[in-house]
Amino acid sequence: MKKIIEFWFDFSSPYSYIAGEHIESLAAKNDAGVDWQPMLLGAIFKASGSAPLTLRYPPLAEYAKHDFLRSARFCNVPYNPPDPFPVMSQNTARAALWIKTNQPEKMGAFCRAGMRGLFVHNAVINDIAWIENAANTCGAAGKAAAAACNDPLIKDALKQQCDTALAKGIFGGPWMIVEGEAFWGNDRLPQLDAWLAKGSF
Amino acid sequence: MKKIIEFWFDFSSPYSYIAGEHIESLAAKNDAGVDWQPMLLGAIFKASGSAPLTLRYPPLAEYAKHDFLRSARFCNVPYNPPDPFPVMSQNTARAALWIKTNQPEKMGAFCRAGMRGLFVHNAVINDIAWIENAANTCGAAGKAAAAACNDPLIKDALKQQCDTALAKGIFGGPWMIVEGEAFWGNDRLPQLDAWLAKGSF
Repeated sequence: MKKIIEFWFDFSSPYSYIAGEHIESLAAKNDAGVDWQPMLLGAIFKASGSAPLTLRYPPLAEYAKHDFLRSARFCNVPYNPPDPFPVMSQNTARAALWIKTNQPEKMGAFCRAGMRGLFVHNAVINDIAWIENAANTCGAAGKAAAAACNDPLIKDALKQQCDTALAKGIFGGPWMIVEGEAFWGNDRLPQLDAWLAKGSF
Repeated sequence: MKKIIEFWFDFSSPYSYIAGEHIESLAAKNDAGVDWQPMLLGAIFKASGSAPLTLRYPPLAEYAKHDFLRSARFCNVPYNPPDPFPVMSQNTARAALWIKTNQPEKMGAFCRAGMRGLFVHNAVINDIAWIENAANTCGAAGKAAAAACNDPLIKDALKQQCDTALAKGIFGGPWMIVEGEAFWGNDRLPQLDAWLAKGSF
């Protein structure tokens, strides 16, 4: 049976964006699939007593901002630092959950479009009109996906999604799980790749 | 002129150990040198409001312990988890500073021996007798290096070393600096390597 990479990410996480640009090709070359799992790192950080990198100890925040750009260059991914940052992205995550349920074949494209929207085009990706347009561009039902942002059931599903992440021991993003093995961070893609290629190591 | 990698590390830091096993060969293949810079992450964490990975949010501590082992395997480095952990290593750092001043050609060997002592042989590397023997094995003057552990001037030099690290914006280890460019963590060795090979990227 095909192995599945659970890819837990936040639309406003720089390292999630960088990893998200490569996760499909990494999966494909190892004959694996990707299960896109949006979460809100704000909720994860609150529960785990942490904070966004750019709001921590000032030298760490400075290093992180520099490393986002350098890591993007190293990984051959375009990156334009959004300002303001961090930003809200709960609507984007809700629309993604709707697409995942109703048009799963469009999920990867929408997730990548959301992160590119923020980290390449500096768009306000939490904006309902932006979401509708982005979903349409991905071939999804933009109006319905955008409407999901205000659907109490979808709001609940996103909360549930964050609780599930916490229950799995997730404390940051991107977070990849294959056959129960967890890999945290864009910089663990080489280990994930080796794990898929060898079965384990 | 030969480029120099400042390699800031703590003798009791797992990722410093893993990186330390490869830093000399990485430097050599790029025609660079290594400047070993011991520091105490305890002092760094205290100043920056952080803590050792294994004493943080429990899921993070668990992940870290698992990742130390997996990263060691991924990097082809032997690793036996020390118990207890974390441990004190200020004496080892002081002896290293003495060796660096008095027998600089033995510095790399002693630094690697100290970390291997902890992470391969589970030795009490802060023990004066262990330090004397390890220094002798590296061809250094064991008795003098061990005596330095109680020398007020060397104690002061180590405090100064930590202050210098903080002034450089260092908040974790290993921490590598080349031509003013900082790289944090064993997982940044590929970027450091690319930086040295290309001049920058």
